[in-house]
Amino acid sequence: MTEWRNLRINAQRLRDDFSALSEIGSTGDGGVNRPTFSEAHFAARRWLLDRAHAASLETQIDAAGNHSARLPAADPHTLTLLIGSHLDSVPFGGRFDGALGVLAALEVLRTVKEAGLTLPVHLEAIDFTDEESTLVALLGSRALAGQLTERDLQQPRGGRAALLAGLQHAGLTEAGLVQAARSPATLAGYLELHIEQSERLIDADQQIGIVSALVGIHAYVITFQGRADHAGTTPLTARADAGLGAAAFMLAARQHVLQHFPGAVMNVGRLHLHPGAYNIVPERAELGLEFRAESDTRLEELQVALLALAEQIAEDYGLGLSAEQVAAVPAAACAPSVRQSFATAADSLGLRHTELLSYAGHDTMSLAAICPAGMIFIPSTGGSHSHREHAAWHDCLNGANVLLRAALTLALA
Amino acid sequence: MTEWRNLRINAQRLRDDFSALSEIGSTGDGGVNRPTFSEAHFAARRWLLDRAHAASLETQIDAAGNHSARLPAADPHTLTLLIGSHLDSVPFGGRFDGALGVLAALEVLRTVKEAGLTLPVHLEAIDFTDEESTLVALLGSRALAGQLTERDLQQPRGGRAALLAGLQHAGLTEAGLVQAARSPATLAGYLELHIEQSERLIDADQQIGIVSALVGIHAYVITFQGRADHAGTTPLTARADAGLGAAAFMLAARQHVLQHFPGAVMNVGRLHLHPGAYNIVPERAELGLEFRAESDTRLEELQVALLALAEQIAEDYGLGLSAEQVAAVPAAACAPSVRQSFATAADSLGLRHTELLSYAGHDTMSLAAICPAGMIFIPSTGGSHSHREHAAWHDCLNGANVLLRAALTLALA
Repeated sequence: MTEWRNLRINAQRLRDDFSALSEIGSTGDGGVNRPTFSEAHFAARRWLLDRAHAASLETQIDAAGNHSARLPAADPHTLTLLIGSHLDSVPFGGRFDGALGVLAALEVLRTVKEAGLTLPVHLEAIDFTDEESTLVALLGSRALAGQLTERDLQQPRGGRAALLAGLQHAGLTEAGLVQAARSPATLAGYLELHIEQSERLIDADQQIGIVSALVGIHAYVITFQGRADHAGTTPLTARADAGLGAAAFMLAARQHVLQHFPGAVMNVGRLHLHPGAYNIVPERAELGLEFRAESDTRLEELQVALLALAEQIAEDYGLGLSAEQVAAVPAAACAPSVRQSFATAADSLGLRHTELLSYAGHDTMSLAAICPAGMIFIPSTGGSHSHREHAAWHDCLNGANVLLRAALTLALA
Repeated sequence: MTEWRNLRINAQRLRDDFSALSEIGSTGDGGVNRPTFSEAHFAARRWLLDRAHAASLETQIDAAGNHSARLPAADPHTLTLLIGSHLDSVPFGGRFDGALGVLAALEVLRTVKEAGLTLPVHLEAIDFTDEESTLVALLGSRALAGQLTERDLQQPRGGRAALLAGLQHAGLTEAGLVQAARSPATLAGYLELHIEQSERLIDADQQIGIVSALVGIHAYVITFQGRADHAGTTPLTARADAGLGAAAFMLAARQHVLQHFPGAVMNVGRLHLHPGAYNIVPERAELGLEFRAESDTRLEELQVALLALAEQIAEDYGLGLSAEQVAAVPAAACAPSVRQSFATAADSLGLRHTELLSYAGHDTMSLAAICPAGMIFIPSTGGSHSHREHAAWHDCLNGANVLLRAALTLALA
């Protein structure tokens, strides 16, 4: 029982699983197309349970459709240490995003079981439903964390009709989603392995990134209101052109974030000019603004600054202004105990590691609110949500071994 | 026969007609809704022919649906002096735009007929089909001027299906549209009265605006091509954000026109960001640009300058660039003889007049290419294409009298 500190996962088995899973919904170019509740998504989840059965692990599907393999402790009333990620993808996404984390979690359970270790906690490898938010943002993990709201279900991102059809297709119910909530008192913690999806680790020549916090995300519709005039007969200086306000805001907001909010990011990914005719001065510009920062305090400061900037620009251009918040995901700090267990594990493997922020949403955000949670990144290239995303196999193995040893550290130390 | 220089139109008759016509398609707020080939548009055109019959004028509908009242000269082989405008409106437009010009033209014919004047030219009051370009830009007048192209008909502004349905509804055919072309050798000229639709005459305290030229109009789709990145994980400085290129262009193009092209105007009335998600950096921005200038030479210079500006911005922001011309309406100079006849007429009525550019498209643009053509503006308020557009009645009368005397000057002088 002392050799647990030297355990490693079975590299060949993990690699075989990764190859097999990558075939499910393969797009033939290195990517996979497994949107939530697509046939490929269902197939991947069935395959996961088959692999768990083959390893003589228990399996479970909860009322939010989350799929789990379980390695129970001797005491049925003890806590559960969750390790997981997700098998769904964005449309035509990559084969590492989510999938690697689920397979590594499964491999952790198999490795512990094979080693004959008796742990004081249940281990559960979990594949969360709809991490990519095709239907509802972080559907499965937020259901488990008891965070789903009426608005999530009534006005879901993917549309109400798609949600209802998807749930029915998956054999789930709205009422059931709420039943999926677990008591925080039953959870020992949550660990997740994920590819980084940007290249900070590579640039810094690090092998493991320990996430200190996941940034919070606010989204707004900012509307500049001008006047629809004839684009021929109205002199340039006599117009109230809502498009100019939007354009000035896009440039100024970026400058402001760069200068005054280092580490934060923003994006204007949507913009509609109304009425949208070549020969009519835009009377209204609706701009979809999103920004992310490392803490809720910083997010709040950024929000105040950006809205003040929009007001100043509206005044400068003689426009009206309104702003409607359409999304607010709080920042999530990772638990110091979990971060320490990752650092200890990486050190035991001789891996170079660093702490960093996660700028993307992950299931860890949901879990951080109800139990000690944390995640690691491994180096990746080719960006995110693309068939080009890639992680070197040795980095995948390093990540899985850190996950294994961190789980054992938390369970046994 | 010498008192023609003192002739005036019948003010009460014109006003009664204007009131009656304003009821057809009335929106109840001072505006009318008579889009091309709507029931209200058909009703207005039938009403016009009824009024012509009541005045014992000849009537005619050509193969492009243009509706005319005619006062023939003694010699059937002589030239025709056209006077006209249009009875169609934009959706929920104003009651003066186009309608006043058609009624004034009809009133000119009635006045001449009542006065017993024998002219050496036929007079024809014409209501052109689809001046507002619901289906095809300046459909009726361009058909008459022999300017319709295959592209106009195959890829009409309003869509091919709407064009075919509209033609059928109006009892017209595509083949017929081409047949509507008249030989320039049969035309003595074209005169048009229209409200100004901007307030230059009011600002300058002038009663009659004599149009020196109608600006040419170029329209482009300018596409900035960047890279779709995750809006969280991709640092601001590592992005190729197509939206920023579009924003910078919108601001810079306006400044450039203001500084270097006085009198010209531009507009970005459309902008689409792709893929259009809050959390994805825009990979492509398609910007609908229109600009107008007083001559084709100036238009060409402006085009070169704006495209060079777009190229510079694309380079600055690390973006690709493409530009596709989607419309090119040449500038149209009004004939000196017609401008002079308007000036002489205005002088004879003691009206303050000035020359100005037309920044909007009018049927005069089509006619200017095939015969001596010109138009006058009367002061108006409330902008354009709005139920708020308004012209004082005394200005309407002044315009109609200038139209009458200019027509007589051209016909008799």
